[in-house]
Amino acid sequence: MESHYVLSLLFRRARAQDVPAIVAMLADDPLGAAREGDPNDERYLAAFERIDTDPYDELIVAERDGKVVGTMQLTYLAGLSRLGAERCQIEAVRVSAAHRGEGLGRKMIAWGIDRARARGCAMVQLTSDKSRTDAHRFYDSLGFVASHEGYKLAL
Amino acid sequence: MESHYVLSLLFRRARAQDVPAIVAMLADDPLGAAREGDPNDERYLAAFERIDTDPYDELIVAERDGKVVGTMQLTYLAGLSRLGAERCQIEAVRVSAAHRGEGLGRKMIAWGIDRARARGCAMVQLTSDKSRTDAHRFYDSLGFVASHEGYKLAL
Repeated sequence: MESHYVLSLLFRRARAQDVPAIVAMLADDPLGAAREGDPNDERYLAAFERIDTDPYDELIVAERDGKVVGTMQLTYLAGLSRLGAERCQIEAVRVSAAHRGEGLGRKMIAWGIDRARARGCAMVQLTSDKSRTDAHRFYDSLGFVASHEGYKLAL
Repeated sequence: MESHYVLSLLFRRARAQDVPAIVAMLADDPLGAAREGDPNDERYLAAFERIDTDPYDELIVAERDGKVVGTMQLTYLAGLSRLGAERCQIEAVRVSAAHRGEGLGRKMIAWGIDRARARGCAMVQLTSDKSRTDAHRFYDSLGFVASHEGYKLAL
C-alpha cells in the first residue's frame, strides 16, 4: 500500500503494535469512555487481525513524528444497488486530544475520500452521533450531506 | 445455512438466479427508480458474486410460494470499538409492491436481528433516507433508535 505524506503527517494502515494507541483514542471521548476496556485486551487484537486480513477493510492511522495521532476505519461495501457500486464506509474516526484543532481530522478524511475515489467507489458514507454537533459542522464542510437517519439497535 | 419458515414464508441466502428479481425490487421505489439499470446487467451479477463469496456478507431474500417477495443485505462489520464487537449492518431492504402491508418487512427485519444476535453481534445498524417517514415509524417500532446522523458523499 502506498503511503501519503502531508508535511510531517503520514497516513498508513495500522499495525498490531498500534492497537493500544488506537484503543486509547477510542476511549478518550465522551461517548467512547464508557464502552472501552484495557487497551491490551486480547479482543482488540483479534478484531485488528480480522480487519487486517479482510481485503475490503482497512484500519488507518495518522502518524506524526513517529507517533500515532489519529485513526479511522475504511470498509469497502459491496451491494447490488446503483449497478453494483462499491461504497466506502468510514467508522471510528478519532484524533488524539493533544492534536485537535490542527486540521488533522480534515486531512485524514480527505485522504480517505481520495482513496475511495481512486478505488472507484460511488459513495462515501458514515454516521455520527446526533450529540456530536461539532463533528456535523465538520462533515458538512467536507461536502457530506446528512440525508439519512442513522438507526442503531443494541443487542 | 439453516432456513426459517414463518407460515409459507422462507428467508434464505440469495442465489445468482434471484438477482434480476432483487434488482427489480430495488428499482421499484421512489428513490431507487432513477439509479438502477437493466436487471440483467452483468455488474449486478458481479456484485452478487462478491457478496456471495464474502464470509461477512449475506444477501437475503424472502420467498413466498416459490417467489422472491423481499430482500435485504446483512454485513457483519469488524471494528475495535466496544472491545472488538461485531456489528450487523442492514442495507437495501425492499418488499415487492404486491406484498406490502402484509407484515413481511417486519418478519424479515426481525429474522435479521435474531440472526445477528445468534452470531453474537453487539449491535444492528442501518440508515434510512430522511424522506422515508413510513420506514422511520417502522424501525422505531422495532426498537431501533435514530441516534445518529447518516452522512453520504457521492463521488
